Amino acid sequence: MNPSPPTHPAHFSTRTRYLHPSPIREILSVVNRPGMISFAGGLPALDSFPRFNLDSMPQEILQYGPSEGEWALRQRIAEELQERGLQCTAEQVLILSGSQQGIDLVAKLFIDPGTAVAVESPTYLAALQVFRFFGARFVAYDAEKLDVHAMQREKPVFAYAIPTFQNPSGRCLDATQRDALAAACDAARIPLFEDDPYRDLVYDSCERGPVCGRLQRAPWIYQGSFSKSLAPGLRLGYLAASPDLLPFLTSLKQAADLHSNRVSQWLVLQQLNDPARSRHLDELAQRYRQRRDNFEMALRRHFGDLASWKTPPGGLFFWLTLNRRIDTRQLLSEAIEESVAFMPGEPFLPVDVDSCGQLRLNFSHASEAQAELGLGKLAALVRGFI
Amino acid sequence: MNPSPPTHPAHFSTRTRYLHPSPIREILSVVNRPGMISFAGGLPALDSFPRFNLDSMPQEILQYGPSEGEWALRQRIAEELQERGLQCTAEQVLILSGSQQGIDLVAKLFIDPGTAVAVESPTYLAALQVFRFFGARFVAYDAEKLDVHAMQREKPVFAYAIPTFQNPSGRCLDATQRDALAAACDAARIPLFEDDPYRDLVYDSCERGPVCGRLQRAPWIYQGSFSKSLAPGLRLGYLAASPDLLPFLTSLKQAADLHSNRVSQWLVLQQLNDPARSRHLDELAQRYRQRRDNFEMALRRHFGDLASWKTPPGGLFFWLTLNRRIDTRQLLSEAIEESVAFMPGEPFLPVDVDSCGQLRLNFSHASEAQAELGLGKLAALVRGFI
Repeated sequence: MNPSPPTHPAHFSTRTRYLHPSPIREILSVVNRPGMISFAGGLPALDSFPRFNLDSMPQEILQYGPSEGEWALRQRIAEELQERGLQCTAEQVLILSGSQQGIDLVAKLFIDPGTAVAVESPTYLAALQVFRFFGARFVAYDAEKLDVHAMQREKPVFAYAIPTFQNPSGRCLDATQRDALAAACDAARIPLFEDDPYRDLVYDSCERGPVCGRLQRAPWIYQGSFSKSLAPGLRLGYLAASPDLLPFLTSLKQAADLHSNRVSQWLVLQQLNDPARSRHLDELAQRYRQRRDNFEMALRRHFGDLASWKTPPGGLFFWLTLNRRIDTRQLLSEAIEESVAFMPGEPFLPVDVDSCGQLRLNFSHASEAQAELGLGKLAALVRGFI
Repeated sequence: MNPSPPTHPAHFSTRTRYLHPSPIREILSVVNRPGMISFAGGLPALDSFPRFNLDSMPQEILQYGPSEGEWALRQRIAEELQERGLQCTAEQVLILSGSQQGIDLVAKLFIDPGTAVAVESPTYLAALQVFRFFGARFVAYDAEKLDVHAMQREKPVFAYAIPTFQNPSGRCLDATQRDALAAACDAARIPLFEDDPYRDLVYDSCERGPVCGRLQRAPWIYQGSFSKSLAPGLRLGYLAASPDLLPFLTSLKQAADLHSNRVSQWLVLQQLNDPARSRHLDELAQRYRQRRDNFEMALRRHFGDLASWKTPPGGLFFWLTLNRRIDTRQLLSEAIEESVAFMPGEPFLPVDVDSCGQLRLNFSHASEAQAELGLGKLAALVRGFI
């Protein structure tokens, strides 16, 4: 066997042309360098994770399980969704191997080459990547000032939305905006794909009721994650969907990985049933709120005259709009030389833009001292950027 | 919100036309009925699973991890693959959320609508389903009597093979057949996708060296699973690939679920490093060998004049060819009425066949008494089949 590349190139699928390594993952690979101050990823704080143990786990959990997920966990999630204002039954819940998987399944279900997909601008870059990989053409919309007719005209096959503590912008739609988005989807029968991984990281009082719960007619998929509120290493999320979509998503899940990890499902169920859970979530939000506030004070000191932003009422990110429209990917290259990492804005946009002058800063990972130092360095680079 | 189906049907992708629930999963859903004797699934014996605990797991494992998988686990797997005769480094190993995921990733990488894929006939039905879903056109080949020119003529974009204890046929390619398959792939530069989930369940001495290790020029993907040798509930597998393919498969893995469950990765690594592991595997094989032998005695009693088969030297299945070419899906409907389940042969064939007269019987799940009773009932149904 010869491990060197073959003389004939392999024949890849056409969709592989749109396959690129995630910029987030690429940046995370330099983040672990000694001395690096990272505002790049969306990593939860390490000391926020519970101590797990398997002492009372039945051995049956180690056998093959149902593709839909554990029945008790689906029931528990359905109860939570009902409390949030999303009427659904346990039968409508599908357990995922992390909510990234939901994006893959939805893309497989809806997207052919050239299919129009409505997305916010900016939006979660890994969703853009997967949709693009399956051939999507993007129709950008502004969920805060919805132009319903523009959205309908392009006949998107679904609308992707992160109404609560959006990634990367941090904004949370208010009740009127949520009603408007639901009404627009209903009017044009556009299925709504609502991604809601940050809702438990809430710092200021705001509307968080699922937009899917406000729909009257349109098909819907709502998904959530245990990565931010429990632990990302468990790779566990879920979706709930309208009855017309769920059987297809379940078949796609079977084909993707048979079913999700049952040990994680069991561990998560124990946590959801823990009477101390809501107190843990409050403490987690309390801690992140403090980090956000400290971070914003440092931001004001260093970026007060360089950029504008809105205080995110939840989630993990500040989204900065610099006063100058520079290429933030170039800025990143310079910043990494100075041992500071962040996420450039361009990959979050559904259209190719040379220089968007926007960047995403995570506030949950760096210590207060690191934030002060890192933001100082970054501001100096922005001032000197040619 | 109205949970009833919408008045307008959703617009699905064209590939969804080829999306069907897995027949295996459908059958598994009836297998749990009280009194059902199941020869259908490939479920390992429940008491073969280790007792897991997390007492010494570092909390860092609960954070996001690398898409490729844990470095220590990739190293350990690379060492095992080298011992099997497959020269590869830890950098060439990608951890999967079960080996079903490898099939999804390979399909995404290679298959466009109409793409030719070479498959054995019969072969693993869930692989056929995923390949078909992405648009594959099948080129059937016989790995035991390889017609190299026929295989080359159709220019398949890759060849899928289960050389060791094939699912469903149970056969194991000998050294000459392995050399011939490798030579055929090399000659036409056809990438080889070798699926090897059963190799640890070995009952009779036979050649098990990976065919990928015999390649000189062709690109390759070799994948394995911890579902049969450890526990399926962990949903953990791996692939190793030639350096020209691995970066693409890693990007596809990122897009599919970011990375595999890190708790499972940690648990599996502890097991692989356990000095008692090879003794456990020997004991597991010993136990399954006994089940196979008992099952075959019952088969001779009940099917001696109804069918022919070869004793599988490993794996979990007998593949029966009935003396009459009946539709075994019809037979299954009758059998379920009598509380006996098995896998009909037709879904394992890459071409549509009305009545193949072949069926797959799992011997690891049913007890000796159940096997005797179930095979007796099944034989009576075959005799009476109109």
